[in-house]
Amino acid sequence: MILNPADEGFAARLRGQLPEDILSPPTAGYLEEPRGVYFGQGGLLARPRTTQQVAFLIRAAHAARVAVVPFGGGTGLVGGQVMPNAAPLIVSLERMNKIRSVHPSENVLIAEAGAVLAEVQQAALDQDRLFPLSLAAEGSCRIGGNLATNAGGVNVLRYGNARDLCLGLEAVLPDGRIWHGLTRLRKDNTGYDLRNLLVGSEGTLGIITAAALKLYPVPAERGTAILTVTSPAAALQLLSMARGRVGEAVSAFELIHAQGLAFLQETVPEVRHPFDTAPEWSVLIELGLTEGQHAATVLEELFSQAFEAGVVQDGVIAQSEAQRRDLWNIREHIPVANKRVGSVSSHDISIPISAIPDFIDRGRTRIAELGTFRINCFGHLGDGNLHYNVFPPKGHYRAEYAEQKPVVQQAIHDLVHEFDGSISAEHGIGRLKAEDLVRYGDPVRLAAMQSIKTVLDPHGIMNPGAVLKPAGT
Amino acid sequence: MILNPADEGFAARLRGQLPEDILSPPTAGYLEEPRGVYFGQGGLLARPRTTQQVAFLIRAAHAARVAVVPFGGGTGLVGGQVMPNAAPLIVSLERMNKIRSVHPSENVLIAEAGAVLAEVQQAALDQDRLFPLSLAAEGSCRIGGNLATNAGGVNVLRYGNARDLCLGLEAVLPDGRIWHGLTRLRKDNTGYDLRNLLVGSEGTLGIITAAALKLYPVPAERGTAILTVTSPAAALQLLSMARGRVGEAVSAFELIHAQGLAFLQETVPEVRHPFDTAPEWSVLIELGLTEGQHAATVLEELFSQAFEAGVVQDGVIAQSEAQRRDLWNIREHIPVANKRVGSVSSHDISIPISAIPDFIDRGRTRIAELGTFRINCFGHLGDGNLHYNVFPPKGHYRAEYAEQKPVVQQAIHDLVHEFDGSISAEHGIGRLKAEDLVRYGDPVRLAAMQSIKTVLDPHGIMNPGAVLKPAGT
Repeated sequence: MILNPADEGFAARLRGQLPEDILSPPTAGYLEEPRGVYFGQGGLLARPRTTQQVAFLIRAAHAARVAVVPFGGGTGLVGGQVMPNAAPLIVSLERMNKIRSVHPSENVLIAEAGAVLAEVQQAALDQDRLFPLSLAAEGSCRIGGNLATNAGGVNVLRYGNARDLCLGLEAVLPDGRIWHGLTRLRKDNTGYDLRNLLVGSEGTLGIITAAALKLYPVPAERGTAILTVTSPAAALQLLSMARGRVGEAVSAFELIHAQGLAFLQETVPEVRHPFDTAPEWSVLIELGLTEGQHAATVLEELFSQAFEAGVVQDGVIAQSEAQRRDLWNIREHIPVANKRVGSVSSHDISIPISAIPDFIDRGRTRIAELGTFRINCFGHLGDGNLHYNVFPPKGHYRAEYAEQKPVVQQAIHDLVHEFDGSISAEHGIGRLKAEDLVRYGDPVRLAAMQSIKTVLDPHGIMNPGAVLKPAGT
Repeated sequence: MILNPADEGFAARLRGQLPEDILSPPTAGYLEEPRGVYFGQGGLLARPRTTQQVAFLIRAAHAARVAVVPFGGGTGLVGGQVMPNAAPLIVSLERMNKIRSVHPSENVLIAEAGAVLAEVQQAALDQDRLFPLSLAAEGSCRIGGNLATNAGGVNVLRYGNARDLCLGLEAVLPDGRIWHGLTRLRKDNTGYDLRNLLVGSEGTLGIITAAALKLYPVPAERGTAILTVTSPAAALQLLSMARGRVGEAVSAFELIHAQGLAFLQETVPEVRHPFDTAPEWSVLIELGLTEGQHAATVLEELFSQAFEAGVVQDGVIAQSEAQRRDLWNIREHIPVANKRVGSVSSHDISIPISAIPDFIDRGRTRIAELGTFRINCFGHLGDGNLHYNVFPPKGHYRAEYAEQKPVVQQAIHDLVHEFDGSISAEHGIGRLKAEDLVRYGDPVRLAAMQSIKTVLDPHGIMNPGAVLKPAGT
């Protein structure tokens, strides 16, 4: 499929039909992404204010065979937001950032796609409700991008991914038609699930312009602790004990490895862990409880049970909101420390939960066969989602390992595949993993994906190169 | 699209390549459905034992342009399981009824599509886990059909629809290829959501042959009550109070109207409600609590709070498992009583929750304008899902109202549409509501559905006439 550039001629044809400030040349922020792997080459930036303007832009691109790159907060980690070697129409939703309505008695909030995640959270809190999606980029990522990539984060264990928090969508399909699907209904069995098809399609099947989102009660009591565990298997036992006691109230269960704490000490020394020596394995657990349950007591009882069973050895239970923030600070700064150290290769993977201890052992062996590396394996253990990052040995730098990076990456992804795991648990495919999807994906499913893409976007204008490799590449 | 009958020639070509007992003429049970609206005319029944046999059958039907009707437990209420005026290949999954594996430490169970829902529930309970999908037909419906129709039931409020309880699928697509998607992963962001596309597609995009299902902890404490409320609005206030106290632990919240209790007294007198006079409105509430919470106490405190607020007037809190069963018996026998009385028209609808009191008022007015009728409006209030059934006045019978049935139906569906509601909350579209979907559905979404159907099933062999009207009809 040959696409045309969003050149001056294309811009000129649009200009007369849109308010003057909608179109402009893209500035640097629209041509970069956080990994620094992909760089845009120019094109045309559109910052529409209404769904009708988005529809007009897409109709024009569809007619002119111009590539469209939807742009949210630009925080995605797989290059879905930057199209290299091309001059696309970049459609940023930043000006469509209104909270359209909040329905606290229905636990529903309707937001435009450009609303920043933290603002959606705050709009819910203002009505004494919780919008539970929470992730590191929440201060700048936008809800449309969260939905397009089916974002995860630290509360998936209890509340699910972005997909699970969405009731309805308004979206512009690749031919520029508007789908009005902003339902507040909890149950609606009237045909195929177009909502879930768009969620997670990373802008390749249309542009989400607004979403109806699920809210939850704010937990009456929150309890947070970091407990040291004897092994990843013990961590899973602890999770099972916690759920046996309080069910879904376990809202976060994050694995931490000594390597991450060591990186913190090296690069972010102001964030300190509460133990005399860094434990090899520990977990941050958070409970969101209802009235009449006392969080610290529940955590103390859990600790006693787990200690007697030989599952935990030590621990700190937050006794105040300040202590709670301190514990979360440790978990939240591990990616910061990782970035400062500089990984050879990082992996956002998931594994069937019961196989995780075995995977961690086998991964260590496999990486050792490739050379001397440091491994920081941490993350959302309760979801089976590990961030498995491989670093150079102390005194060495990632730049020295450029050649080994693909070897390490394939070793890990092969192992994930052997374990029936996923090579992208929560970040998506984007451009970074489009080849891997071909390598590891089920061929029948890939063929069905390609068919759906072709029929809904016959000219292939929507985010070309993301998720699905264009034919012939 | 002209399809060929599954005639003797077609059967003869298959016979040599399958075990002898796979094919047979369909008996009456495969040609009927519970509403008694659709009747099959014959065709060929296949009862495969393996996914490979299903794939072989579909490949053959695809090649010969023969219509395929997937058949689960046959309990669907919208005629999705019977193709009238045709001789299709009926593929019953009844022999593929194994529980393939249970993974209690992962809260996952893998079942073949023909497993009866009650057997899936029991297999989970045997490992001290809960599979929460629960509905009237659970003793005979099959999990593949539950997923194909995205079944609802009484626990949706807490645990979601069938869709929400499914992690992965194995399915045969319309060209006979097998998609191996039986993942146990909780997070997997690798491309389009084919799982949710098949769930709820009612056999029109493929045949589900097995599913990976989510399990939950069995609640430590269960508390059940029927409380009388002053109005539907008061019922919603009660729900909000209950959630404020125990959050997601509210697992069922069912509205009951005096008309339903009167029908019970008339037609199922052995099931008795616990009040001196039948309250106009009452709710059955169930809590599934965790360790350390005492269900009866929580319900008593909730009752006191709601009584003081003028929201509830009276109530019965179950003090034993036997009393709990008695309360549920009332709710569960209302559909039985409805059937014995015989409705003019029944409706499985949903409405944005906060609009329900207004909808109930407006519905009463609108029906009164059409004549003298009795209305039994009851159901899954917590999900915004009402079963809104209209009956003849006392001493009259449904047969007298055949002409008015479509008038009543359209009046209700029009009103639902005015309220941004759904004309099928949990039963699906099937053949019964395919016209209504065209009338009320978003045209852009319908066009996208038709495109997806055409590209995945180019010969239109999968359950023709269900969900989407064939072109030209």
